[in-house]
Amino acid sequence: MNKKINKDLVKKFLINLQSNIVETIEMVDGKNFLNDAWQRKEGGGGNTCILENGNVFERAGVGFSNVIGTQLPKAATDVHPEVVNRKWEAMGVSLVFHPHNPFVPTVHMNVRFFIASKEGEKDIWWFGGGMDLTPYYPFLEDVTHFHQTLKDTIDPYGKELYKKLKNNCDDYFFLDHRNEPRGVGGVFYDDFNERDFNHSFELTKSIGQSLLNAYLPIVQKRKDVNFNDYQKQFQLFRRSRYVEFNLLQDRGTLFGIQSKGRVESILMSMPPLVKWTYDFTPTKGSDEEKLYTNFLIKKNWV
Amino acid sequence: MNKKINKDLVKKFLINLQSNIVETIEMVDGKNFLNDAWQRKEGGGGNTCILENGNVFERAGVGFSNVIGTQLPKAATDVHPEVVNRKWEAMGVSLVFHPHNPFVPTVHMNVRFFIASKEGEKDIWWFGGGMDLTPYYPFLEDVTHFHQTLKDTIDPYGKELYKKLKNNCDDYFFLDHRNEPRGVGGVFYDDFNERDFNHSFELTKSIGQSLLNAYLPIVQKRKDVNFNDYQKQFQLFRRSRYVEFNLLQDRGTLFGIQSKGRVESILMSMPPLVKWTYDFTPTKGSDEEKLYTNFLIKKNWV
Repeated sequence: MNKKINKDLVKKFLINLQSNIVETIEMVDGKNFLNDAWQRKEGGGGNTCILENGNVFERAGVGFSNVIGTQLPKAATDVHPEVVNRKWEAMGVSLVFHPHNPFVPTVHMNVRFFIASKEGEKDIWWFGGGMDLTPYYPFLEDVTHFHQTLKDTIDPYGKELYKKLKNNCDDYFFLDHRNEPRGVGGVFYDDFNERDFNHSFELTKSIGQSLLNAYLPIVQKRKDVNFNDYQKQFQLFRRSRYVEFNLLQDRGTLFGIQSKGRVESILMSMPPLVKWTYDFTPTKGSDEEKLYTNFLIKKNWV
Repeated sequence: MNKKINKDLVKKFLINLQSNIVETIEMVDGKNFLNDAWQRKEGGGGNTCILENGNVFERAGVGFSNVIGTQLPKAATDVHPEVVNRKWEAMGVSLVFHPHNPFVPTVHMNVRFFIASKEGEKDIWWFGGGMDLTPYYPFLEDVTHFHQTLKDTIDPYGKELYKKLKNNCDDYFFLDHRNEPRGVGGVFYDDFNERDFNHSFELTKSIGQSLLNAYLPIVQKRKDVNFNDYQKQFQLFRRSRYVEFNLLQDRGTLFGIQSKGRVESILMSMPPLVKWTYDFTPTKGSDEEKLYTNFLIKKNWV
């Protein structure tokens, strides 16, 4: 197998992944995505696929981007001082699906490849990504299914790898100011450059390709569950935490904003409708309370 | 007059200002605020007054806080490296009113006093604050009234001061990533330590006390204007820019979050219901377009 870096292979994989996911979600939803190709003045471009007011999804975005630059923004060099003053190229697929039904969780996935180069020096590169689930009215079996799918996907790449990536995810998707996890986690990795290009790429491919298996069975099972207005309002309220995380903490979002990325494509992760309520406290013994006590906790789900 | 720092006077003024505003808004709205006193573990506390689902206001928050600490967070020391390693105390009143009716603009005001002290050295102190207006369907006469009130308030403190504070406000409340002002501005100042304590305090008092004169006539004139669902949806959409500014850029919000302030009190500025729509473009010649072309621009309103 190929052990040398092959950008074109990664790009081809990402573009295919995007269209596979888009086509499948269109079948599930019954409504088609809007396809919006864009160029970035500073170099590169992308293709944002977005579905709003669908039958199942209130907002679903799947974006591909391949951007290049000469100076990395602070959000990147803070974490990677070794790439200061290097030309860089980043490519990836990002998606966030916000369903109508509060019994269907929100899912986020991202897979990306990053290279920083300097003449006469070796390329610095890594893969990153992951996916995580943010439920409103969770079912334990759904959370278990999601994590089990990820574990099965990752196990071939290393005995303890799922556990490591699962813990990364718990650490990363944690709202410091709320002292609260964003959801029930999943897996997250960054700066992944293990063994060789091929090994790291294969892991990334497997994770990207597992999204539909990890998420769609939950959608199918819960999309027609009856819900009332109180449950809908609770979903809108919980979405405010999603917004807070993305705008206050998410490195990808802040990287995009700081590197003068295309705003509409970066912020397609925002929920369609969001509610802030002062100091909401769930009723004792309610399903809303169970979200906090039984799910928004650090736990091994498989 | 008193030229020496008098913290107690400032505190008394702020507490009175909060109750005056709360009482007046209660009369206008017909619904009472919830009064929520809180303590901060690291020192100090505050009193958050919040009204949700009122008759005129969808969400209105008026907060007083007086907090102390030993280490300033990054959001403060980035701008003020001279206060690193000083004990600090901050007190202020902040308010944001989000009306139901999209013909009534959102208003924000903040007045604050800051002292950083170190044994054997002189106190470093300043006042800061301002207010700004964020309309959805603006009337030129309302914007003029708002700015004229501020100009009349500030003129006694210096011939060119309104202009300076107005420009500060334009610079500050500007969404870099959208290349768009948050609204039609107002006045904004920080690090204000001119002449002596008394002069700086008087300016701050005048600005704080001008809020009701600057804003209430607009509320009274527009609160009963008929509006349709499209206009309401546009207001919800525009509120997303408010959220983006506050979570991505606002120094007060980031200072609060980074200094482990009380989250619910800091984020009472968030709108109650917010909508993100992909790449919204207003129809040619529409009122929505006029917001962008005639109001979200740099302009002298008086």
